[in-house]
Amino acid sequence: MTKRSKNMAQNETKELSMTHHTAAATHLSGESIIAGQRVAGTGKAVSGVNPATGEALEPTYQLIDESQLAQATAAAAEAYPSFSALTPQEHAAFLESAASKIDALGDALTQRVMAETGLPEARANMERGRTVNQLRLFASVVRQGDFRGVRVDPAIPDRTPMPRPEVRQRKIPLGPVAVFGASNFPLAFSVAGGDTASALAAGCPVVFKAHNAHPGTSEMVGRAISDAVAEAGLHPGVFSLIYGAGSSIGQSLASDPAIHAVGFTGSRAAGVSLMKAAAAREVPIPVYAEMSSINPVFFFEGVLQKSPEDLSELAKAYLASVTGSSGQLCTAPGLVFVPAGARGDAFLEAVGEASAAAAGQTMLTASIADSWNAGVEQLAAQAGVDLVGRGAEGATKNAPAPVIYQASSEQFRDNPVLHEEIFGAASLVIRYTSTEDLVTTASRLEGQLTATLHLTESDYSSAAPLVPVLEGKVGRILANGWPTGVEVNHAMVHGGPFPATSDSRTTSVGTLGIERFLRPVAYQNLPEELLPAPVKADNPWNLNRRVNGDLQLES
Amino acid sequence: MTKRSKNMAQNETKELSMTHHTAAATHLSGESIIAGQRVAGTGKAVSGVNPATGEALEPTYQLIDESQLAQATAAAAEAYPSFSALTPQEHAAFLESAASKIDALGDALTQRVMAETGLPEARANMERGRTVNQLRLFASVVRQGDFRGVRVDPAIPDRTPMPRPEVRQRKIPLGPVAVFGASNFPLAFSVAGGDTASALAAGCPVVFKAHNAHPGTSEMVGRAISDAVAEAGLHPGVFSLIYGAGSSIGQSLASDPAIHAVGFTGSRAAGVSLMKAAAAREVPIPVYAEMSSINPVFFFEGVLQKSPEDLSELAKAYLASVTGSSGQLCTAPGLVFVPAGARGDAFLEAVGEASAAAAGQTMLTASIADSWNAGVEQLAAQAGVDLVGRGAEGATKNAPAPVIYQASSEQFRDNPVLHEEIFGAASLVIRYTSTEDLVTTASRLEGQLTATLHLTESDYSSAAPLVPVLEGKVGRILANGWPTGVEVNHAMVHGGPFPATSDSRTTSVGTLGIERFLRPVAYQNLPEELLPAPVKADNPWNLNRRVNGDLQLES
Repeated sequence: MTKRSKNMAQNETKELSMTHHTAAATHLSGESIIAGQRVAGTGKAVSGVNPATGEALEPTYQLIDESQLAQATAAAAEAYPSFSALTPQEHAAFLESAASKIDALGDALTQRVMAETGLPEARANMERGRTVNQLRLFASVVRQGDFRGVRVDPAIPDRTPMPRPEVRQRKIPLGPVAVFGASNFPLAFSVAGGDTASALAAGCPVVFKAHNAHPGTSEMVGRAISDAVAEAGLHPGVFSLIYGAGSSIGQSLASDPAIHAVGFTGSRAAGVSLMKAAAAREVPIPVYAEMSSINPVFFFEGVLQKSPEDLSELAKAYLASVTGSSGQLCTAPGLVFVPAGARGDAFLEAVGEASAAAAGQTMLTASIADSWNAGVEQLAAQAGVDLVGRGAEGATKNAPAPVIYQASSEQFRDNPVLHEEIFGAASLVIRYTSTEDLVTTASRLEGQLTATLHLTESDYSSAAPLVPVLEGKVGRILANGWPTGVEVNHAMVHGGPFPATSDSRTTSVGTLGIERFLRPVAYQNLPEELLPAPVKADNPWNLNRRVNGDLQLES
Repeated sequence: MTKRSKNMAQNETKELSMTHHTAAATHLSGESIIAGQRVAGTGKAVSGVNPATGEALEPTYQLIDESQLAQATAAAAEAYPSFSALTPQEHAAFLESAASKIDALGDALTQRVMAETGLPEARANMERGRTVNQLRLFASVVRQGDFRGVRVDPAIPDRTPMPRPEVRQRKIPLGPVAVFGASNFPLAFSVAGGDTASALAAGCPVVFKAHNAHPGTSEMVGRAISDAVAEAGLHPGVFSLIYGAGSSIGQSLASDPAIHAVGFTGSRAAGVSLMKAAAAREVPIPVYAEMSSINPVFFFEGVLQKSPEDLSELAKAYLASVTGSSGQLCTAPGLVFVPAGARGDAFLEAVGEASAAAAGQTMLTASIADSWNAGVEQLAAQAGVDLVGRGAEGATKNAPAPVIYQASSEQFRDNPVLHEEIFGAASLVIRYTSTEDLVTTASRLEGQLTATLHLTESDYSSAAPLVPVLEGKVGRILANGWPTGVEVNHAMVHGGPFPATSDSRTTSVGTLGIERFLRPVAYQNLPEELLPAPVKADNPWNLNRRVNGDLQLES
């Protein structure tokens, strides 16, 4: 039995002994949760709004003030010493308990997500599954322990001219982390999303600023985490959920001396403003902002040598990726390169037909729908931009018709407007004339989360020179699929050069994300009695270690 | 035979076959080396100065202008694709060749270092050994390959509701790196120092800005690297050495779009100015600046229960660490906590005697000596600061007398001047009254490279609460030694929270430093033919991989 499968068996036993409190956990109070206490704000009141109907949802949430924020960050700082020193068992059990409590929210959570975001039921349920699986995945990472990065260079007492000291290294959590929820993933990139899960797994207390577009969803999930903190007997400052005015409380949080890192998913403007706040601090801190990406997709000639039926399937898959979740996905394919000429024309004809068959779906908020409309209007007005196809408006409010436009690669290279993200169900096809044209045009792209190649064996030689260009531009390169639908696993990179993210050295999805919240500390000749457990000589946590530079696995 | 020892055997064989060209390599031209070409600058002329005599050293170096700088960064960008794709064998052999060529500079290099810096011969030779060993250590890291961070999550075609794709991950080099040499390590933190070695090992071309205090040393070492580039048949843009006006060329280099990261060792002011330049770019980049540290040392009561002879030895060791290299070491113990009371008094008496016996040594430059004098003068003028002991001035110019002062912990806590680094042979003793006092005072410290505990078994319980406080403040904690003399190995951390460095998540000494110059890229369902070698299914580079989250070692 591997260490991992032992862990999984332990998890299952744990699950069976959990009790669920669905009813109590789904009543909404409209309050922030500051270090385990429900706290009514003193500021403006906001409420969730059903974007499909425009109806305001109960309860209202009063935004907190600066002094209430300071209570949350101070409590997080207080919680750090004990939280960062949990055993792997205590630590992982806490994450698993939080997952179970979110699971136990069941259909009440799904209904609230749907009401606040307009997202369909299947999507809400899938996202809940992803969120709890992610917490459990990070629990397994905590039990396995490789993220602690233990290194040992043993002493060599008889080295000349001087004895070699013993040096040990481990990674410790940075300190309290501020996380900002995204509008478009009310569960998986929100209160218990990837940033929170990886920060908590690293051993960092989290102060979470709820997105005001889904306050009730946030409260339900925040309560689940807060209850898990209490049940595990942890310091209550391990987790706070605050409702605040976006920009002002956001800047205060990123500037708070108790905060040691920021996780953010959202717009480029908001992300850049957090980066600037963090860089301007007396002690600058890292900001992990996932911002803006148009996710280029490249069709090669060979892959378009298909029957009309197969081209039609390909076009439908394109539209499905553009319109899924009303196009409000970080990895939606906003830019699709199609060769000029007959095969490309045939494909675009199929895309036109698939577009016409596509129906609008409710967007997350009225203001997001307004921005989408403005973006599409601006794009349509650019010289050389032509309509490929337009679908139908949805039956609800804020459900605009999906659209596909096209332009030439020359127009794309010369016009920065064509490089801008339009958040929602719109996509721009670029017609290119040669592999050289493709490589040149791709080299002008800004940083992206993903790039996708559609190709067949006959295209490999054309695609080969593009791959290194894309490696320099994106976090993930995929083939013969669509970039939406991000796997949460060990090898995933949901990141990429600016402006896709603020820091290309990391990922905000997948287990590598835990490294964002860690830093190394070395111990030289420290007596065994004073060494922390991960680096003690007898390896009480059974960790894999790098000894004299080589990995040594514990079974 | 492990993979590592195989590598070492290969290295030795390689060494024996190298030929040396000492004479030609040590003639100095006074020119920058831009992508393999010697280029005369168009700006002001500077020359090295022997700080012991004030004598200017031949030749003069004419500083380059902005357009010459742009040639170097453009060449580095051009070199990136081929350099980043070298096989481990080619890549490691290049690093080893550079090491051998520096070694071959022999005594000529030592003499030039001594003339330009005033450092003694033993130190110059030791530093040369450290520099070439460091290049060879990074060559072994390149051959071993764990830094490529390969992860594989295999496909699960029959997963429901959707097949699981295959996802592979590796780390790629960031791109061209700008490195700024330090004044105080003309070899090990200069042209072929840790930043250059780790950036080249990561696969990043380097544009190195020479420190104008040791231009001849820089040219000799730069030529060795440049020759190694040429002999290996690499793109000449892999390495450039430029002479420029510190602040203006520095800002241009950090702002150049072709540059993807900055390595720096030097003053807090210069480091912060590079951080600001990098954050203000259209595309911000990471800055790894190692800046300011006073390296607190904590003496506990028990360890001072010694005979007068042993206390005298301890005091001499303290002075040796303060005065070594004229105190111009990043890790020099600028702050030493000693308990109030009789045992502390006895130790300070011994420190006073050891100070009186200490002699001044030539400092690196006249301006560094001037800054030291100003710092000491300011410190001595503070309320409650008393002299413990003063040595003798050295016989040369710029060799001020080492000094030790003391103050109370209360005075230290209240006066920010007492927290400032004085670069050179000066140290401040702080008398503390209790463990609580020590913990409180330590918690007020800024970020540091190191903290040192002097203790015996009876002190462990007093020291235990201090350890987690120090983990939050420093990169390395050591016991019963002195922080100067940094091992270059796998577990070392030469880093720490701001202002010790700009980025506490890393180290500028030791093999972990390579991670500064890498970022992850994921490949999803990419055909084997298009995958780069490190992630190909048949693992042609024989790399250790993380599969489904668990490490799998290749033997």
